[in-house]
Amino acid sequence: MADSKQTLSNRLTKLHQRMEEAQVDAYLVLSSDAHLNEYAPEYTRRRTAITGFRGSAGDALICADGSHIFVDSRYHIQADDEVDHDNFRVHKLGLAEEKTLSQWLTEMEKERGSLRVGFDPFVVSMQAHAAYKAALKSADSALVPVYDNLVDAVWDEQPAPPANPVFQLSDDLTGRGVAEKLSDIRKEMEDAGATVLVLTKLDETAWATNLRGTDIAYNPVFESYLVIDRERATCFTRVSPPAEVTDALASLIAFEPYEAYADAMKGYGAEAAGMVWLDPSGTTMGTRLMLHEEQKLLERPNPTVALKAIKNEAEIAASRNSHRHASAAKIRSFKRLQDSINAGETVSEEGYCQILYEEYASEEGFYDLSFTTIAATGANGAIVHYADASPDVPLQDGELFLVDSGVQLMGGTTDDTRTVIVGEPSDRQKEVYTLVLKGHINLAMQKFPEGTGGVALDALARTFLWNAGLDYGHGTGHGVGAFLNVHEGPQRITPRGGDEPFKVGMIVSNEPGYYEGGWGGVRLENLYVVVPADEMPGHPDGRKWLGMESLTLIPFEKKLIDWDQLTSSELEWLEGYHLRVWDTIGPMLEGADREWLREACQTP
Amino acid sequence: MADSKQTLSNRLTKLHQRMEEAQVDAYLVLSSDAHLNEYAPEYTRRRTAITGFRGSAGDALICADGSHIFVDSRYHIQADDEVDHDNFRVHKLGLAEEKTLSQWLTEMEKERGSLRVGFDPFVVSMQAHAAYKAALKSADSALVPVYDNLVDAVWDEQPAPPANPVFQLSDDLTGRGVAEKLSDIRKEMEDAGATVLVLTKLDETAWATNLRGTDIAYNPVFESYLVIDRERATCFTRVSPPAEVTDALASLIAFEPYEAYADAMKGYGAEAAGMVWLDPSGTTMGTRLMLHEEQKLLERPNPTVALKAIKNEAEIAASRNSHRHASAAKIRSFKRLQDSINAGETVSEEGYCQILYEEYASEEGFYDLSFTTIAATGANGAIVHYADASPDVPLQDGELFLVDSGVQLMGGTTDDTRTVIVGEPSDRQKEVYTLVLKGHINLAMQKFPEGTGGVALDALARTFLWNAGLDYGHGTGHGVGAFLNVHEGPQRITPRGGDEPFKVGMIVSNEPGYYEGGWGGVRLENLYVVVPADEMPGHPDGRKWLGMESLTLIPFEKKLIDWDQLTSSELEWLEGYHLRVWDTIGPMLEGADREWLREACQTP
Repeated sequence: MADSKQTLSNRLTKLHQRMEEAQVDAYLVLSSDAHLNEYAPEYTRRRTAITGFRGSAGDALICADGSHIFVDSRYHIQADDEVDHDNFRVHKLGLAEEKTLSQWLTEMEKERGSLRVGFDPFVVSMQAHAAYKAALKSADSALVPVYDNLVDAVWDEQPAPPANPVFQLSDDLTGRGVAEKLSDIRKEMEDAGATVLVLTKLDETAWATNLRGTDIAYNPVFESYLVIDRERATCFTRVSPPAEVTDALASLIAFEPYEAYADAMKGYGAEAAGMVWLDPSGTTMGTRLMLHEEQKLLERPNPTVALKAIKNEAEIAASRNSHRHASAAKIRSFKRLQDSINAGETVSEEGYCQILYEEYASEEGFYDLSFTTIAATGANGAIVHYADASPDVPLQDGELFLVDSGVQLMGGTTDDTRTVIVGEPSDRQKEVYTLVLKGHINLAMQKFPEGTGGVALDALARTFLWNAGLDYGHGTGHGVGAFLNVHEGPQRITPRGGDEPFKVGMIVSNEPGYYEGGWGGVRLENLYVVVPADEMPGHPDGRKWLGMESLTLIPFEKKLIDWDQLTSSELEWLEGYHLRVWDTIGPMLEGADREWLREACQTP
Repeated sequence: MADSKQTLSNRLTKLHQRMEEAQVDAYLVLSSDAHLNEYAPEYTRRRTAITGFRGSAGDALICADGSHIFVDSRYHIQADDEVDHDNFRVHKLGLAEEKTLSQWLTEMEKERGSLRVGFDPFVVSMQAHAAYKAALKSADSALVPVYDNLVDAVWDEQPAPPANPVFQLSDDLTGRGVAEKLSDIRKEMEDAGATVLVLTKLDETAWATNLRGTDIAYNPVFESYLVIDRERATCFTRVSPPAEVTDALASLIAFEPYEAYADAMKGYGAEAAGMVWLDPSGTTMGTRLMLHEEQKLLERPNPTVALKAIKNEAEIAASRNSHRHASAAKIRSFKRLQDSINAGETVSEEGYCQILYEEYASEEGFYDLSFTTIAATGANGAIVHYADASPDVPLQDGELFLVDSGVQLMGGTTDDTRTVIVGEPSDRQKEVYTLVLKGHINLAMQKFPEGTGGVALDALARTFLWNAGLDYGHGTGHGVGAFLNVHEGPQRITPRGGDEPFKVGMIVSNEPGYYEGGWGGVRLENLYVVVPADEMPGHPDGRKWLGMESLTLIPFEKKLIDWDQLTSSELEWLEGYHLRVWDTIGPMLEGADREWLREACQTP
């Protein structure tokens, strides 16, 4: 489905002409869309339409005399494979000496004296805009808003925006009604002195309204804006929810067409009424520029992020349930895989994905995957976000097979990664797998006092890898929604930043790994819910102890574990985990599947 | 030497009168002095003169109807012991629900409607001032600068400021001459666009000028300001260095009287020349208010902090040498202690301090202690910064004895803590000691990639304690100077903040602990220099691997180690460390001291 080199090259040439007409030296083509979605809808994939690079993140800077694309370590290999190196230079962020897009702007400006950089304000976040603006030092330079997107103008095959139905979740899944949520939000607004709050991220609107949709792949959300003031809330949607839903919500939320949003914001701007709360990391410059220049703004993370992150009892129960189903399905898929291989059949990466999808889809309440399944065998495992499980790449004896997958299952969102071996492992494969597993366990069994942030826990997952000279170029953990986005904040586990303290009810992934070009990859990921560790003795300062309870219940690959390298406490954790897997998932399986799980959960 | 309750009470009454005259509702009496010294000279200990509390940190807020003192977890117990609870409420920071001074100002303002808070601008940092200012929300409230310090006015017994000689360090100890250092600083100024840099912290001036003094206890520095512009540098000192020093430095630095500083800054202010670089965390409001209100400022950490933190080869060599001497002396002190106890003699906390001082002072190049020796036996060990080793408290059988001490030894600064047992330990003592030791080793043997900050390493020292329900209320590590302050930045190892990346040549402490009121304390501290870990295989992203080399060479207390709880890699580290101690310090000892060390370094 990828555009041909010729198509891409033609678009680029036309874009250069448009840039000349717009009188800009460079043009920003970011991966972001109007709602800063992680999975941008097809019609917004302008960066792919221009560069050919199909990864989820990575920004391009188009220049007449040679363009640039900036990608993080997940995409170093993929970007090299997909872009036309005659037209694009690939900047591999994270490598020593490699400059970011902002630093590159500074560099170019220095060379040329000044620089006019065009951008579409509705797809550049306020935060990104501030960074690019700070990068330009000369008074003769400028970031030039160009309201008609220049890529749209040269993209003949651009798809139409989505316009899918919106539906309502029941309160027994969400645990909290819309009236209560709006009241929680307005309390935060009052405390902060804000009169208007603008939600532009789709999962925030979906969470606040208890509505869901299918406009975005894998994320059960719908294209919309939600504007909340002290009395009213207005939701701008492409498709209005069914009448019975809008009627039921009538006293809480008014629904307006998506296209009416910009004018509505201009209205607020003219009134200049009170203080408008915008989250600079979650809002585009489009919204900002619709407001009056003098509008008083409160620029800080919007309150739904923190409210949404702490799951209530109903959400945790639904998440536990979703993970039971997802785990049972994935266990069966591994059993089927092994049967096929034992029978001498050839299974491709894509073939396995079909098996997994069938098993997921057979579970009660299955709704969708929560992201493209990563099924990478052998060397492909080194591509961290390998999204192209191939029908032509067979699983082969002695190869590691990495499967990172998840589902949306009514009420919950799952995400887990297992790495298994086809045939018998080498010593090196066992050594690396065991180092990753020890890191996973070390973090999983850690008790920590309230107030601890993810940055302070990250090294617990890396310590053994680091001491062996290994590392991974991604964070250790991200937040996960409840029947919402598989990546959400504010909590994360990462070596820099990430000091948001963990709170009871947050869901976070634990996913150390190791990747080596040509060799392959190992990643071991469970989702955990943060729980009180009430069994602990009192903390010396009276703080609460917290711990993590695994939602994911899938055995680890015994053949890849070097059991001698586990300490007694690591072994104890692993045996306790496998016992829980067996106790919980065993009763959901039958016959040979059940026997397979029993064996998989036993320490040799 | 402490002031009587009556004296303190009289001063407080007079201070209330002065506050009324100055028309302020509250008056800030912070622990800080004009140079934000950690060890403030006697004449600046206004907080002690008013509250009676003698700890190194902790701020008071004086109010007519009841005053407040805010102390961190190191001083919860000591503050309770020392202040008059009729006049002061002790706020124990770190305990759940306890408010900071800033939060308390907000609280008081809320109750009273508005609040006028007086302060002496020359003893309040710009950063603290900004925090207090932000705490006051009402337009009728104000932070009121009161230039004549109100405590000085009621403190009849206030000592005179110090006025001690200033001397020069040779280049073979400092590794870099003054001309080179000023050139390094000016390069940073140029890069940042600053025309004037003001150094107000004494260790920064001492580092930049290669001069030292004795104005401040334990820190070999002198009361001064250093103002650097693109061409000139002016050092304002209480006592000018000897003529041969000022002559030799004449082309680089002009020396002026300390009292001329304020007027000189007013001069800069009037000229409003260029951009003045002030470090808000290291500069008082006094300096800020001397400058013109419209003066263009560059407010960021000043460049000497980072330059000073990375020790050059000469400084590292001198530090290694200092630590060898300090370690040999401390080892001999423990041998003497054991001999005394074996002989049935009673040794008090202070008695041991005398033994230790004698041994330190007998080492070649000994100059001073680097801080008050903490020698705390039994329950006193729970007072983290126990500064009052007592002649009346004998070391007793079965008690832990915690000794945190260090020296200034020509060219280097040391700091180490050992906890030993008198007689035989209980199981609990061994258990806790071993948990602390495992944390120390876990951090000490960690390899990590460049770019890693201390916050990302902190949990490695806490993991075993945390999993046992234990913790310590202080950071895990701080930077240390080279023949300078025993505490310096920017690097530190701490559960929050502290994301300054470690660099080769930085010196940092590793000092996990555990404290329990009534039971006592364990702390195990070595200083480490960050070194390249070139023996490691290449990092996947091409980053450099770093590791830590211990400067401190003192054996750990074998009797307190539960050897079964050490993993094989922990044991390997400990045996390698003890071998290095023996190889390096053994040859410096003779006879029975040498035999004692041989035995102390052997694994049972």
